[in-house]
Amino acid sequence: MNSFQFQNPTRILFGKGMLEQLGSSISAYGTNVLLVYGGGSIKATGLYDRILKQLQQIGAAVSELPGVEPNPRVSTVRKGIAICREQKIDFILAVGGGSVIDAAKAIAVGVPYEGDVWDFFMRKAAIQGALPLGSVLTLSATGSEMNGSSVITNWEENLKKAIGSIHAYPKFSILDPELTYTVPANQTVNGIVDTMSHVFEQYFSQTADTPLQERLCESILQTVVENGEKAIHTPDDYAARANLMLSATYALNGGMISVGMQNDWATHMIEHEVSAIYDIAHGEGLAILFPNWMRYVYRERIDRFVQFAVRVWHIDPTGKSEEEIALAGIQATRDYFTKIGAPSRLSDRNIDAKEVGRMAKETVRFGPVGSFKKLHEDDVRSILELSL
Amino acid sequence: MNSFQFQNPTRILFGKGMLEQLGSSISAYGTNVLLVYGGGSIKATGLYDRILKQLQQIGAAVSELPGVEPNPRVSTVRKGIAICREQKIDFILAVGGGSVIDAAKAIAVGVPYEGDVWDFFMRKAAIQGALPLGSVLTLSATGSEMNGSSVITNWEENLKKAIGSIHAYPKFSILDPELTYTVPANQTVNGIVDTMSHVFEQYFSQTADTPLQERLCESILQTVVENGEKAIHTPDDYAARANLMLSATYALNGGMISVGMQNDWATHMIEHEVSAIYDIAHGEGLAILFPNWMRYVYRERIDRFVQFAVRVWHIDPTGKSEEEIALAGIQATRDYFTKIGAPSRLSDRNIDAKEVGRMAKETVRFGPVGSFKKLHEDDVRSILELSL
Repeated sequence: MNSFQFQNPTRILFGKGMLEQLGSSISAYGTNVLLVYGGGSIKATGLYDRILKQLQQIGAAVSELPGVEPNPRVSTVRKGIAICREQKIDFILAVGGGSVIDAAKAIAVGVPYEGDVWDFFMRKAAIQGALPLGSVLTLSATGSEMNGSSVITNWEENLKKAIGSIHAYPKFSILDPELTYTVPANQTVNGIVDTMSHVFEQYFSQTADTPLQERLCESILQTVVENGEKAIHTPDDYAARANLMLSATYALNGGMISVGMQNDWATHMIEHEVSAIYDIAHGEGLAILFPNWMRYVYRERIDRFVQFAVRVWHIDPTGKSEEEIALAGIQATRDYFTKIGAPSRLSDRNIDAKEVGRMAKETVRFGPVGSFKKLHEDDVRSILELSL
Repeated sequence: MNSFQFQNPTRILFGKGMLEQLGSSISAYGTNVLLVYGGGSIKATGLYDRILKQLQQIGAAVSELPGVEPNPRVSTVRKGIAICREQKIDFILAVGGGSVIDAAKAIAVGVPYEGDVWDFFMRKAAIQGALPLGSVLTLSATGSEMNGSSVITNWEENLKKAIGSIHAYPKFSILDPELTYTVPANQTVNGIVDTMSHVFEQYFSQTADTPLQERLCESILQTVVENGEKAIHTPDDYAARANLMLSATYALNGGMISVGMQNDWATHMIEHEVSAIYDIAHGEGLAILFPNWMRYVYRERIDRFVQFAVRVWHIDPTGKSEEEIALAGIQATRDYFTKIGAPSRLSDRNIDAKEVGRMAKETVRFGPVGSFKKLHEDDVRSILELSL
């Protein structure tokens, strides 16, 4: 186990009816609120009205930034920063999934910074502070509700980049599984893939002597696998939705499940370059890429892949070689993603070989990626070609 | 899963050499420090000198409260509160195990309160604030380094009672596994039993639909069982000490592993009454009582005990009844405690039946205890009698 520091100050309010605590949760920070949301589904479901009622009860003045994209754009973030400055906003409320929360975080850190917010994503400046923000989660996937990370796309430059800061943790997040009943099946699938992928990035590690962390990772994977299909087939299954929601939050709440482990994140970086050009859903890109990353790297530490196969997928090791067990676990991952309806090839989303070179080059812009196996441009190109 | 709120603001600095961060971690809060510690082992190991050096580097004024007892006493807490007021202390640093940290927390919440600190423990007053505190952990056991709980003994009244408050969370805790190399074997054993018992109190729950939380609990139990004997037999096994330390912290860091689950805590309340009269180590009391609590209650939800037996103790269920599997898991718990050198009967610590009635009565002073099975005075007496 490596040395580490860990802190996660976000307060979680979890369960049906927790939205009633929204007003009082905000009023400790301010009453001049920027409401950030996405494509308008929160109006169709009535959530928007419930939120406004809570804000009215604390006498809040409300500005709005609607229309945050599934891959949120820096242009939208800049718009939000301008509103915050003009309206002297003192609290940002994100209502939506990871994209909306990520946009709200980028706005929050951008407001007190004199330069352009994209500087943070290009490592040209360090985050020094942020407006306080909170979230009401409507989609289980990214864990953004309980961490300090934000991923933003710059379409002018076809770049999708991430930041992370203790200042960007939400002060609170309201997690009501009932709010995810209306999530379309394909987005539920993407959320499942995203949650599992976040665990993969932490679990497949070269760090030795981390038995507790490995088991915490396996606990989340097993819980997601057991509950995923239930939520897809019975969207209002409270227990399944609650189990997925808690799993997604714990999968990436500041690294709690992988403290002291070197993380990988290469597959996410490759996926970011795919969706920066083709604008496919993050979960779709991960479902396509991850099993191919696994096939490309598993020999680097086959014992971890054997453990994964046996503990998560219950592969019977009797009479099989390590190689066979590891590959059976990877195949089980591929099969599960396919079974729940996720794509398995880039061609399933009409992506051909044309931009593979560009995507591989951009993935390693800041140097080789990953740590389970360090990937150079050629490696990334190989994984993308395996995925065509 | 029940609805819940969760927040844990403590910053953890984990790993060898993290003590070098002590000075800078304190200076954000103040430089007039009360140093709280126990029986003086920190002087023998040289830790005391290393701490003082860190405090000198930030120019701190240092007052001291040495001699905190293994079952820390309210008289000692009152002494600490008096020092804080006289010396206008602005930060409390606890150096030791759970007892020292618990005492520091009680001092921290007692300073801003006008009445006597024992009022909090008797539910006569609510905690409204606290002096900031931090800890340097020297013993893996209680999780006090990352939660808001404190257990204090009042010898005048033979009472041992607990408080919990968001104000009592340490601002930071330094967890260096190397600092536990010198812990005597019997205290390592007590720490193992305490950690496992904390998980038991959360895991044996009547709450339905909590598959992730159950697995998180099992992850800790398995990790402790695998690493316990290594640490006992090879005190300077860094990996074993680190795995035990992280397990103990996660086992009780504000309930992270059991969010949305009703907890039990009856066995702890019974043990508190035993050690309030006989002053035995908390871990010894738990090792004696817990398997007997299990035998007394397992029929209330036999499926959880079956799962415990199979997943934690790897009991082969083939050809066995649920009853047999559950009892085999309980016996495995008893056997493990015995194997690592923990006592199994109250008579092992020279405790006879004389005070059983008084302990049973005091356990239920505030009403029946526990939730897996609600225990009345008669039930508590039966468990104590099983333990003689």
